[in-house]
Amino acid sequence: MSRVWNFSAGPAVLPAEVLEQVKDELLDWHGAGCGVMEMSHRGKEFTSIIEAAEADLRELLGIPANYRVLFLQGGATQQFAQIPINLLPAGKSADYLVTGSWSKKAVKEAQRVVAGTANVRVAGSTEASGFTRFLDAGEIDLDPNAAYLHLCTNETIHGVEIDCARLPATAVPIVADLSSHILSRPVDVSKYALIYAGAQKNVGPSGVTLVIVREDLLGRAPATIPTVMDYAVMAENGSMLNTPPTFAIYVSGLVFQWLKRQGGLAEMEKINAHKAELLYACIDGSEGFYRNPVRVADRSRMNVPFTLARSELDADFLAEAKAAGLVSLKGHKSVGGMRASIYNAMPTDGVRELVAFMDDFRKRKA
Amino acid sequence: MSRVWNFSAGPAVLPAEVLEQVKDELLDWHGAGCGVMEMSHRGKEFTSIIEAAEADLRELLGIPANYRVLFLQGGATQQFAQIPINLLPAGKSADYLVTGSWSKKAVKEAQRVVAGTANVRVAGSTEASGFTRFLDAGEIDLDPNAAYLHLCTNETIHGVEIDCARLPATAVPIVADLSSHILSRPVDVSKYALIYAGAQKNVGPSGVTLVIVREDLLGRAPATIPTVMDYAVMAENGSMLNTPPTFAIYVSGLVFQWLKRQGGLAEMEKINAHKAELLYACIDGSEGFYRNPVRVADRSRMNVPFTLARSELDADFLAEAKAAGLVSLKGHKSVGGMRASIYNAMPTDGVRELVAFMDDFRKRKA
Repeated sequence: MSRVWNFSAGPAVLPAEVLEQVKDELLDWHGAGCGVMEMSHRGKEFTSIIEAAEADLRELLGIPANYRVLFLQGGATQQFAQIPINLLPAGKSADYLVTGSWSKKAVKEAQRVVAGTANVRVAGSTEASGFTRFLDAGEIDLDPNAAYLHLCTNETIHGVEIDCARLPATAVPIVADLSSHILSRPVDVSKYALIYAGAQKNVGPSGVTLVIVREDLLGRAPATIPTVMDYAVMAENGSMLNTPPTFAIYVSGLVFQWLKRQGGLAEMEKINAHKAELLYACIDGSEGFYRNPVRVADRSRMNVPFTLARSELDADFLAEAKAAGLVSLKGHKSVGGMRASIYNAMPTDGVRELVAFMDDFRKRKA
Repeated sequence: MSRVWNFSAGPAVLPAEVLEQVKDELLDWHGAGCGVMEMSHRGKEFTSIIEAAEADLRELLGIPANYRVLFLQGGATQQFAQIPINLLPAGKSADYLVTGSWSKKAVKEAQRVVAGTANVRVAGSTEASGFTRFLDAGEIDLDPNAAYLHLCTNETIHGVEIDCARLPATAVPIVADLSSHILSRPVDVSKYALIYAGAQKNVGPSGVTLVIVREDLLGRAPATIPTVMDYAVMAENGSMLNTPPTFAIYVSGLVFQWLKRQGGLAEMEKINAHKAELLYACIDGSEGFYRNPVRVADRSRMNVPFTLARSELDADFLAEAKAAGLVSLKGHKSVGGMRASIYNAMPTDGVRELVAFMDDFRKRKA
């Protein structure tokens, strides 16, 4: 077996160490005589798995006691609907920042589900400038009476990221999509009222969605909400109103354990910052052969989109990269070019190999 | 490693042969250099996986061309909401048959989400007789103008099953929950307008829900429905509006291939009928030591609930069974006693061992 360097934006590379453990336990988890996929979610074995996953996630992120951790289904796209249905009552308004494809989709879905009964208000957008930076303070027009402020702190497609230190100053609850950079750096959870993340980028397999929600936001849903979408009901039932995606939760829990073994999020941040520096240095030092359009201060450490000045070389670049064992580098169709997603599970060596390939390709083709 | 005989009602036993294949491919699927959990859902590898899964399911069930196959999230519980939101417009009425815990939950959730704008009508119920049989024709009062008729063809908790040959005669679309017996026997899909099933009983891991829907039922959802819940949108997007539960779909697909290798559903029906006969014969021949309360014609081949006449022996029964490698036999808390779920992946040998244990236990304790 030979593993490639996998730069997929998601579902994405998982730590080989975690996969080896999954493999070892696949038919017999800890002597249970069956694998995790085959266990009742109500049994003591799976209960211990989901409890450990929550405890480890709480430790990694320093989640305060007044926040609940939910393991849900449906991905971030379901959250785009679930958030306004739970948190935006008729007659109220919510603010949305639009800084890339994902936050734009969140606005569209919120508008769809509230259907004019409430106001989904764009409080700032960088769309006119091509989603190549985050918003400056002067460009954000916040409503102090908004039910919440929604934003996406790492735009996977456009490669724009902000840290919790750069959140807009506001007293309204901040609801944030951290799908593609959660667990890549420490986060002050207390600055957010609700954090959500599809697992398939930096957490585990697709099919489980993390929601970290402050308790005072629970119980605001209308009585007509589908029960599986009601945060309060899911919190009351420990994410087990119905059968949860048990295997995806188990693998995510193993990733949390792996992150603790790496030294936690402070250590991951150092590694991730270094990986990103290597790659951006290669791009910026290429004399325009490669280009990343994002303002330097807002560049994502996780998703690095770049274009080749001579786009006629794109197909060669991808084919030669693949031959060198560097895969899933094609950019999202909406922006074109290339994208290297360098999540937690991408080792520094993988980025070094990508950079060496990119340098060599440039020298040969420039 | 020693595998137990696992009678869990779900998540449930999977074929060891399938698990071995998953294990072999976990870090490198067919030379891709990464596992299925790590692949983009938009890439050619995963596309081939989901297309093969759909083709095999279509072949196994003989799904007509005018039906769409969807791989969704949220389980049957989400379908309890999603069905009326899609198919029950304001001012209309839908009929529900109540023959156990699951169909009763479906009514409650439908009432919740329509909230009085439409009529969720119980067209027949066996609750008064303890959910120990299906409804007789004379007990069903159908509305010829109903938007649909909903029923559950195998009640997992109460062990009541009907075949498609016994569906009520009606011209309205039949919507059915087949979660706990889909793929256990041939089904005439054309008798249903919509079939749904959570995967974690007879299909694969939890986290994926099969929906097989006739095309004329698509496009009936209100414009305000969360996009992920709109059958038409999911059908248009090949279940990939957003990232689907890729690994769960992959494992389900391997189960479909395994079923084909067993000879398909006609062969599975023979095996399942034989397994059920062995177990019911043990219960019925126990001179009242074990009892199954379900009317013989309506007994489930998949879920066999039974009680011990002397319930003070329950704890001994479970402990000794576990020591003999027979696990997850405790009945659902709402009915008590025991339950043996003997899905497709439970070999006849497992049922024989259970029967041998039950016979021996009775002789020693009677």
